[in-house]
Amino acid sequence: EYVYSDQDQRAVDTLRVLAADAVEKVGSGHPGTAFSLSPAAWQLFQNVMHFDPKDQHWQGRDRFVLSPGHTSLTLYLQLFAAGAGIEMEDLKALRTWGSKTPGHPEYGDTDHVEITTGPLGQGLASAVGFAYDQRRIRGLMDPEAAPGTSPFDHHVFVIASDGDLQEGVTAEASSLAGTQELGNLIVIWDDNKISIEDDTDIAFTENVDKRYEAYGWHVQRIDWLQTGDYVEDTKALYEAIANAKQETDKPSLISLRTIIGWPSPKKQNTGGIHGAKLGTEELSGLKEVLGFDPEQHFVMDDELLAHARTVGERSAQYRQTWDAAYQSWRSHNPERAKLYDRLVAGGLPENFADAFPRFESTDGNMATRAASGKVLSALADVMPELWGGSADLAGSNNTTMAGEPSFLPVDRQTQSWSGHPYGRTLHFGIREHASGSIVNGITLGGLTRGYAGTFLIFSDYMRPAVRLAALMGVPSIFVWTHDSIGLGEDGPTHQPVEHLAALRAIPNLDVVRPADANEVSVAWQTILSQRQRPTGMILSRQGLPIFDRDQEAFRSAEGVARGAYVLAEATNDSGETTPDVVLIGTGSEVQLAVAARQTLQGQGIATRVVSAPSLEWFDAQDEAYRSDVLPKDVLTVSIEAGVEQGWQKYTSGQGHSVSLEHFGASADYQTLFTKFGITAEALVTKVQSLYNA
Amino acid sequence: EYVYSDQDQRAVDTLRVLAADAVEKVGSGHPGTAFSLSPAAWQLFQNVMHFDPKDQHWQGRDRFVLSPGHTSLTLYLQLFAAGAGIEMEDLKALRTWGSKTPGHPEYGDTDHVEITTGPLGQGLASAVGFAYDQRRIRGLMDPEAAPGTSPFDHHVFVIASDGDLQEGVTAEASSLAGTQELGNLIVIWDDNKISIEDDTDIAFTENVDKRYEAYGWHVQRIDWLQTGDYVEDTKALYEAIANAKQETDKPSLISLRTIIGWPSPKKQNTGGIHGAKLGTEELSGLKEVLGFDPEQHFVMDDELLAHARTVGERSAQYRQTWDAAYQSWRSHNPERAKLYDRLVAGGLPENFADAFPRFESTDGNMATRAASGKVLSALADVMPELWGGSADLAGSNNTTMAGEPSFLPVDRQTQSWSGHPYGRTLHFGIREHASGSIVNGITLGGLTRGYAGTFLIFSDYMRPAVRLAALMGVPSIFVWTHDSIGLGEDGPTHQPVEHLAALRAIPNLDVVRPADANEVSVAWQTILSQRQRPTGMILSRQGLPIFDRDQEAFRSAEGVARGAYVLAEATNDSGETTPDVVLIGTGSEVQLAVAARQTLQGQGIATRVVSAPSLEWFDAQDEAYRSDVLPKDVLTVSIEAGVEQGWQKYTSGQGHSVSLEHFGASADYQTLFTKFGITAEALVTKVQSLYNA
Repeated sequence: EYVYSDQDQRAVDTLRVLAADAVEKVGSGHPGTAFSLSPAAWQLFQNVMHFDPKDQHWQGRDRFVLSPGHTSLTLYLQLFAAGAGIEMEDLKALRTWGSKTPGHPEYGDTDHVEITTGPLGQGLASAVGFAYDQRRIRGLMDPEAAPGTSPFDHHVFVIASDGDLQEGVTAEASSLAGTQELGNLIVIWDDNKISIEDDTDIAFTENVDKRYEAYGWHVQRIDWLQTGDYVEDTKALYEAIANAKQETDKPSLISLRTIIGWPSPKKQNTGGIHGAKLGTEELSGLKEVLGFDPEQHFVMDDELLAHARTVGERSAQYRQTWDAAYQSWRSHNPERAKLYDRLVAGGLPENFADAFPRFESTDGNMATRAASGKVLSALADVMPELWGGSADLAGSNNTTMAGEPSFLPVDRQTQSWSGHPYGRTLHFGIREHASGSIVNGITLGGLTRGYAGTFLIFSDYMRPAVRLAALMGVPSIFVWTHDSIGLGEDGPTHQPVEHLAALRAIPNLDVVRPADANEVSVAWQTILSQRQRPTGMILSRQGLPIFDRDQEAFRSAEGVARGAYVLAEATNDSGETTPDVVLIGTGSEVQLAVAARQTLQGQGIATRVVSAPSLEWFDAQDEAYRSDVLPKDVLTVSIEAGVEQGWQKYTSGQGHSVSLEHFGASADYQTLFTKFGITAEALVTKVQSLYNA
Repeated sequence: EYVYSDQDQRAVDTLRVLAADAVEKVGSGHPGTAFSLSPAAWQLFQNVMHFDPKDQHWQGRDRFVLSPGHTSLTLYLQLFAAGAGIEMEDLKALRTWGSKTPGHPEYGDTDHVEITTGPLGQGLASAVGFAYDQRRIRGLMDPEAAPGTSPFDHHVFVIASDGDLQEGVTAEASSLAGTQELGNLIVIWDDNKISIEDDTDIAFTENVDKRYEAYGWHVQRIDWLQTGDYVEDTKALYEAIANAKQETDKPSLISLRTIIGWPSPKKQNTGGIHGAKLGTEELSGLKEVLGFDPEQHFVMDDELLAHARTVGERSAQYRQTWDAAYQSWRSHNPERAKLYDRLVAGGLPENFADAFPRFESTDGNMATRAASGKVLSALADVMPELWGGSADLAGSNNTTMAGEPSFLPVDRQTQSWSGHPYGRTLHFGIREHASGSIVNGITLGGLTRGYAGTFLIFSDYMRPAVRLAALMGVPSIFVWTHDSIGLGEDGPTHQPVEHLAALRAIPNLDVVRPADANEVSVAWQTILSQRQRPTGMILSRQGLPIFDRDQEAFRSAEGVARGAYVLAEATNDSGETTPDVVLIGTGSEVQLAVAARQTLQGQGIATRVVSAPSLEWFDAQDEAYRSDVLPKDVLTVSIEAGVEQGWQKYTSGQGHSVSLEHFGASADYQTLFTKFGITAEALVTKVQSLYNA
């Protein structure tokens, strides 16, 4: 119900003043939109959203995404007002070491922050993922409920900025949101026509409303300047939100024309108020305009704060209703409730370990991407929480679980893809960046595990989303196939060379490149066993032999879980022996190390082969294991069809790698490996020269 | 003039058959759009574009960008038909080692290929840069000429695919094209409703025409299915192109509804024809439908080929007219002609070296971004070919040359930015990816040097464009400021940690991180002296001391040109001496190495400091120089506020670095450097422990 009392107005103004005080104290920050968005954010947190100030994990809550993370105060101040874990001391600690109020909202640092935002575009794009996730979970738990009647119904609210709407990733995600008819997504665009370079007319003149209509969105415009004066018509905004909620088959954009920094007397409506403190004079001026004492700082009237915090009671009332509905659902859906409890607890299914296929060497050559597809299909029934798809490369990425329906409005089904709104297979179109952001949104939901596939080369397109997953520590899974010059004829634009190194450089991202089908299986098991970090699963286009782990000298693929392990021990005539040389490789090059070992051992050089699918997992092992696998005093040489950068940490030093230091070319892959010297012979030659040096 | 004779039709059909033959022979490739785009491409190359088959460098030519690079045959076949350097043998060598016909068009490998395309979106986005460049050069050379009358007028034609229009980078660039009113840009969108996952209805349902209207484009639709049958109405297409040329204040989108793979009997209009050979039966079927002998391969009727190659004569006629206009322009504009000749030759201005400012240590602390801004302003008059701007961070990136006008339609000027259509300062808005692609387009023009600025963290957003610049070997310049945790309060979403390593991993990209203002000046001079490679210029937010190169022990900043150089030699009481330890650092951390040197020398450890602004430039020096700067047997330790990865190549090995192996945090930068141990003290401690070990 719409309410906006004098007390509300005074509270909204107080929050503006507190924003100014906080930025002034630390000396930097973004006051402009914290002023002008104060009434809109107030409406959302006090009147619109289902939000429990005391329980950030409540599943029935609406989700809130502040896409322009630089206006973090907009969120912190509402959390303060609502009594949701932020107090005045936290506002005073804005942007300082260890505070709950960092420069941008950081997932994990502050309660009720659903996602880290700041790199523009990511918030809105991931919000589309939040909306996907809501629909999928409803489909798993309560698909028969009429619209709006399920405890698994909620909305995703987004505040977006001019910057968010200029970034390409939101264009990608917004187009998908239209295709998917995401009625649960409501975006308020703060249309203030000012960015850092001031008036946006120099670079942002498109008709955004029309663009969103073209995407199939429901678009409304609220112009707080329409009377000629600036009137913060919160009622119009509230009603627009109500309309948006009525619109269940389309995502909604509410274009809200505001004046940045209003009512700051001299700096409102300028780029200068975007990202700098006001200064003493302007700060006083603001307080005077709003009827506050310029001499006082960090003050909120007790009565006003108590008034604001009555939102907790309103929330508690709604929550009682929700709890009753939830308990009713539980009692009517005991099996689903069991699944739900497992997902909330983050536990694995009972028969998890048994679900993973084992492959036989007699299966012949198999691309690791093909093995990955088989693993995913084997998991389909066991892990309903696992879902995902590809950026228009489903057949190439092997990301489709056999027989699983697509996640699609019924009228979007095609001859190739059947499905329904609660389906499982995702189709991102040719939108790699959005696929990453959307999977982050899905994974942040906390109950399901989302994955997105494309060629490894296009990890570059999604890198900002990958980094954000790593920074947040959310377990998004990126399936990247066609992982080297093994891609072949399509040539250097499609052949990764530097990508393994560039991805390994990202802190907290696991990069996993299995050497054969059985390594793929153990890798998936390991990935799905943790929820702390994102993973890049790196898979070959070309067929690879499956090492015979029973009959030959090859050790169990269970070693994959430790990141690197002895695949084939050094031997001499009397059996296993201390290695003279260790060869370490990943993925499709491990077979080359195996072949080189045979040659070298024939020459009397006892050679161990270490398969190293994940250097991050290996780094996490204890020193004893690591020095057992890679003894410090033994000549160690790596082979990987990519740049040497980073390998010096594991080899005997610079130049102890068979690597590729330049771009690829268009030809069949066998020719490329030969021409570029990524061969067993090259490895043998290198080892010989180093061993004899 | 529109022409489409029976001979033309037969030639178009022959090219379809040749496309099928070429893919069949090599066994992989993309026949589908090579069939269906054949008539449209024919119109462009034979009837529309100014194009000299014998001179790919002719400045008067229209530019052609094939954004979906996978349909490279569409281009190769027109070049073959026109006699522009491709012969039948080249078609037979499709996608094989060393051929002129690689899987995707590669700039430099094939005459008349204006840009490497393949990663979808890049072609169309860079085409916007081509269009910017045309306008800028006209402004430099012939600004008074009436529209359409200058030898510097030409059009940029683009063929774009569904995938191109789904990628976010084209959304960004297309919005800018609308703002810039690029009447010289004409895009034909191949609207075939099929991508790799088949019917695009699963992921691409937006109204593209309406979206482009929202960007301010002129939009026309040609539907070859409108009669119910599929009729390749090339006349309608030709007329639409003519209309688009009439529209001088808006970029044009021509949405051309086609059937992919038409008239392949069974595979047309399926995802299956996108990227796979037809197979014997379907290939025969195609030939039969078109009236060719299924038993014959790689045949073009001699008479037909001769007919096609008459385009050379038509071109020669136009070129005569153009040459006359050009000579007339030269005689009336001798000074401009002199500049033009220098730009075509790729030469530097006469007073180039003198233009670069030198800074005094008495200037106090100066951020390297500030120094960079001063260098750019100093170059404004000397190098008119240098231009660029920022993705809405002009004031932060210091990318604006003082007093230079913005590149803007007159009615887009704002209070902060005056300019005109021939201006120099670019405003990309919050669109980092497009900024990179556009600068690539500008730089591919060959006459000017474009640069794009943003924060280093957002190099992730533009990485696909950066990689493509490196792959093509074009000298785009990326100005990346706020280069470490020195960014401070905005926190980890904005603080690069892994970015230096990730960028250094890209082959053929120069990464340059100067340590003080004078290094910035020499770095710019070095960058602008070559045209072979792109550069990432990495600059600090925070102020850095300017080393006193005259009075103290600091050597000349001219060493920057060699990538790494001895900034301060080891000394003892008798003066310079052989170092016991070498400290190597970059950017803001070099001052820490200098401070550590003083402490260490006080303890009797003779310490050399090497400043290493560009490891790529250093790697390019001869072995003698490199081992002189970094003697192999001397303990070498690095310091850089980023991951260690890659430094092992220069230090004494793993662990010989003061580095940052995790994400940053929100606090003032001094606190961050201290808390994270990127300090002179940490360096001293590390050296002591290694030296004594």
